[in-house]
Amino acid sequence: MKVLALSGGVGGARLLDGLYELSPSMTAVVNTGDDFVHCGLSVCPDLDTVMYTLSGLADETRGWGLKDETFGALEQIRAFGGPDWFALGDRDLATHLLRTDAMRRGESLSAVTSRLCGALGITARIVPMSDEPCPTLVDTVGEGTLSFQHWLVRRRGEPEVQAIRFEHRPPPAPGLLRAIEGADVVIIGPSNPYVSIDPILRLEGVRQALQEKVVVAVSPIVGGRAIKGPLATMIPQLAGVPASADAIARHYGSLLSGMVVEHGDSVTGLPVLATETIMKSRNERVALAQRVLAFAAERLR
Amino acid sequence: MKVLALSGGVGGARLLDGLYELSPSMTAVVNTGDDFVHCGLSVCPDLDTVMYTLSGLADETRGWGLKDETFGALEQIRAFGGPDWFALGDRDLATHLLRTDAMRRGESLSAVTSRLCGALGITARIVPMSDEPCPTLVDTVGEGTLSFQHWLVRRRGEPEVQAIRFEHRPPPAPGLLRAIEGADVVIIGPSNPYVSIDPILRLEGVRQALQEKVVVAVSPIVGGRAIKGPLATMIPQLAGVPASADAIARHYGSLLSGMVVEHGDSVTGLPVLATETIMKSRNERVALAQRVLAFAAERLR
Repeated sequence: MKVLALSGGVGGARLLDGLYELSPSMTAVVNTGDDFVHCGLSVCPDLDTVMYTLSGLADETRGWGLKDETFGALEQIRAFGGPDWFALGDRDLATHLLRTDAMRRGESLSAVTSRLCGALGITARIVPMSDEPCPTLVDTVGEGTLSFQHWLVRRRGEPEVQAIRFEHRPPPAPGLLRAIEGADVVIIGPSNPYVSIDPILRLEGVRQALQEKVVVAVSPIVGGRAIKGPLATMIPQLAGVPASADAIARHYGSLLSGMVVEHGDSVTGLPVLATETIMKSRNERVALAQRVLAFAAERLR
Repeated sequence: MKVLALSGGVGGARLLDGLYELSPSMTAVVNTGDDFVHCGLSVCPDLDTVMYTLSGLADETRGWGLKDETFGALEQIRAFGGPDWFALGDRDLATHLLRTDAMRRGESLSAVTSRLCGALGITARIVPMSDEPCPTLVDTVGEGTLSFQHWLVRRRGEPEVQAIRFEHRPPPAPGLLRAIEGADVVIIGPSNPYVSIDPILRLEGVRQALQEKVVVAVSPIVGGRAIKGPLATMIPQLAGVPASADAIARHYGSLLSGMVVEHGDSVTGLPVLATETIMKSRNERVALAQRVLAFAAERLR
């Protein structure tokens, strides 16, 4: 079964890790709306989280970045009075340096991502949603429009969100639509629909291509709460309803063939698998991926 | 007494450190011929050595770079199969990142150097010799023309040197000629004349401005050997004479008002101070600087 998954950062990456174990040649399409330029470097938080997670280099305790990370560069940036609100790790810097340099020399984000993932031994195809920058903008109450990382990291996600916007609509990365067409099932990871999955869905041709497919989403909301990140407060702000798995299902609407939720959560109007969705260990990732794929395979019939 | 010094990397920086203690508002004009772009970053080895030394942040044991340095980025660059022949330290990366970003935004090398040095509390004026790139090229026997860092670091200074060349002749940094004119004495540090001092001397107007001044050089050759670097083998290759303090004096020729050499070394045809020139401790740097300045002051009469 050819598996394609859409993913944001940490939550999505953990499910990808399980899917990747079962399907080493899978395709992961990753949000790049959070990407930004920091100290002149192209930083791609979701792509890197996916790359570090699938290569086994992610720091699972801290929840972001690389294992055995140090922060000497950040300390010295601070000593120089430079911008220190975004925690660039030293090992992590290697990724940003090599990517930025390659892109300045004309290599596309897709190509450099593929090359870096290959160097780390990742056999899955990791595709940034687009080769063109497409920053996610956050319209806030009181602080105007902020880029996503400024809102989330610099302002700690504190300013109330009025709307999520996108400056333009770049073409999807080369081969992305063909990859969707060639997939048997599409899994939407337990990522933030507004800022991690919508940026992918709105790219030209993506939603249409997905409508032909069995698409199963894993709810990022468990018992009314988000496992990580600002989603639980975003849902009431943006959709005017309480945070719930059902709110996620309604957000994706007719795109979904089925939904995977935590035991005790409910969704109306489409096939649901209620199961353990919180992934603490690698085994739990693989076990959830197995159940998700089995549930998606049933939808193929 | 207004002190201006010309310097390359380590040896020059150590004398500067002593001079700076005695003359906190001195001017240091630093070679930028070794500068190169590595992983997309503007790396200025001599400027950084001077900045790190005068701020007390230099690793004196290792002889280059910053104290408490780590090399996580380098290890990860290696894991990606990236270029690892130049040892970028993690803290050191902060300097390159902030400088490269500032220069891409249009700030001059002089301006960013002044800002970074100011942030580290350095009161001396540290001036890169030029705001324009002016790479020192090494014509080798057998391996063609190499940029200086490629020859010195990547090829460990092994290929025999046929000639040192410069692609073009940029203007000196703004204010550099006025700084020379305003100086009472000019000290040429114990740096490599071919690759550290000549790049400064050949800039338009510099040699003429220096001819009006008391100029004292400290010999980088002690007992026929260089304290650090490839100078001792370069002298026979480039000047056809054995390495000696006298060869250094002849190289600078009529520019010099006097020369400071190690006890036992001799120079003919100009006033000489023979003294302890090897600087192991900070006290020895200050003591040598004191003797050098006294010797230069005598030349003013």
